[in-house]
Amino acid sequence: MKQIPQSRINLYDLVVIGSGPAGLAASIYASRYNIKHIILGMDLGGTIALAHQVENYPGFASISGIELSQKFLSHAKILGAQIENREVIAIEKLNNHYLVKTNNDHQYQVKTIIIATGTKRRHLNIPGEVKYTGRGVSYCATCDAPFYKNKIVVVVGGADAACSGAIHLANFAQKVYLIYRRNELRAEPAWVNQVRQNPKIEIIYDTNITEIKGNNNKVQKVKLDKIYQGEKEICTDGVFVEIGGVPMAGLAKNLGVKIDKDNFIITDNQMATNIPGIYCAGDANAFQKHFQQVVTAVAEGATASLSIYQYLSK
Amino acid sequence: MKQIPQSRINLYDLVVIGSGPAGLAASIYASRYNIKHIILGMDLGGTIALAHQVENYPGFASISGIELSQKFLSHAKILGAQIENREVIAIEKLNNHYLVKTNNDHQYQVKTIIIATGTKRRHLNIPGEVKYTGRGVSYCATCDAPFYKNKIVVVVGGADAACSGAIHLANFAQKVYLIYRRNELRAEPAWVNQVRQNPKIEIIYDTNITEIKGNNNKVQKVKLDKIYQGEKEICTDGVFVEIGGVPMAGLAKNLGVKIDKDNFIITDNQMATNIPGIYCAGDANAFQKHFQQVVTAVAEGATASLSIYQYLSK
Repeated sequence: MKQIPQSRINLYDLVVIGSGPAGLAASIYASRYNIKHIILGMDLGGTIALAHQVENYPGFASISGIELSQKFLSHAKILGAQIENREVIAIEKLNNHYLVKTNNDHQYQVKTIIIATGTKRRHLNIPGEVKYTGRGVSYCATCDAPFYKNKIVVVVGGADAACSGAIHLANFAQKVYLIYRRNELRAEPAWVNQVRQNPKIEIIYDTNITEIKGNNNKVQKVKLDKIYQGEKEICTDGVFVEIGGVPMAGLAKNLGVKIDKDNFIITDNQMATNIPGIYCAGDANAFQKHFQQVVTAVAEGATASLSIYQYLSK
Repeated sequence: MKQIPQSRINLYDLVVIGSGPAGLAASIYASRYNIKHIILGMDLGGTIALAHQVENYPGFASISGIELSQKFLSHAKILGAQIENREVIAIEKLNNHYLVKTNNDHQYQVKTIIIATGTKRRHLNIPGEVKYTGRGVSYCATCDAPFYKNKIVVVVGGADAACSGAIHLANFAQKVYLIYRRNELRAEPAWVNQVRQNPKIEIIYDTNITEIKGNNNKVQKVKLDKIYQGEKEICTDGVFVEIGGVPMAGLAKNLGVKIDKDNFIITDNQMATNIPGIYCAGDANAFQKHFQQVVTAVAEGATASLSIYQYLSK
């Protein structure tokens, strides 16, 4: 790898990788603790920015995901957060610090790191999914719902994102099929009730989709793994894949950080991994992997920064 | 104990004891999960309602404690929270449920309980403290600061509440002595900086106050355990005691819930105590006893309700 001029190496006490709720909360606390830090993030605001509506972050009875993420971002910035929109491509251990390398040859020499990279969207991995992505296959009901006015759409999944996505889509589409592999939705009952009461939403339980078909230009139908109302196919204009996320744990793994069988990063209660100076907060953390909420992500971010304050004070 | 008519026994899936951030967040999540519950609280909004300013709850860059607690309260109420202003005096185990008894002979038969009772203010336990409470001795800088316009006040303590209290008092008083038993403040550095930069605030380290003296009507001086600037006494009009809190764990203890040596309630990561159906969230929980933040309290409240949802679903 080519030599980077020393002048381009930036020194910090902490780099926060990820700019979602966990990373921004970590920055808020780091600023309050006067920890010299920088946030390196690909998606400002994080996954929550794509949520149609958030009704369970205490203090905001109902707020759009984008508005809530803007509030976190603005809070962090008011306290002086430095945020750069870069992808971290490698982390190297060098004596008593770490070298964080990003695209465009930037390097950051840091004492501590908070990995707040969250998850990336899980794909169905079925024929037609890649081919029709952007041509009817979508991973963001909030972003794309308006394109489906009076159309038919399929939502795949049964947890919070799938249910709230289906409700949002029903504001535009004439018909929403919610197709779930289990026999019971596992979203918050508040979302489940809204789904059940919505006359435009039809739930198909115990069913997977096995193929997405179209006319090469756009989605036309999905194939099911069992017969539904006499057919094994459903005609649709769009397929929204809302089946959760997989943790972005690659950087941590390469450093020797312990991960669990599902690739989530293992930490103690103070968000410390097994590697000194490396912390993890938010959806990539195994800690609350069955309860990935904004409120737990921000608490983990705050806790990680307190831990780092204590670590740096030693 | 006299017999309570059956008609006065109220049935719930969950009673949340305490109406601070942890209890209100627990209620928000319980409502989203359709858990039939009631909040029994003595101080609506909790301790945070007394904070002058909160600058580290993500989403609100700067908000008064009372405003933030009103937002939590309003969020919980919008989702249907039933809140009663009662003191819980006893909890009894009866077969597969609990009987929660309050003042005025009310009883609640419940399947689960979240103890979110928080802490009560720690006292100095020195001569004059009780005698002059309300006559110069105060436990609430936010509430009482305006009474000390152009006066001299003493703040005892050195953590967040003491420092932010001293800053608030300096807006009114002509002089604020911050007296702390250690040789270094342990508040967020953001608060410490503000204290140091405030010309009205004088910090006296490594010192305890041993007595509060007055003319029977009001405070006139405090006695120190060592000489400061040639004197062992400081003239003052007020004494603000900001030395933290002790957990309100009595109810839990009587049920056999495990507590630690400082009386904090021990739970697992899911906020479950050792007793089935009994959960604890917020400042009374040992989990984050060195990091009692609004953001961790609300996350614990949310997590407790999720755990209860899973417990009740079994």
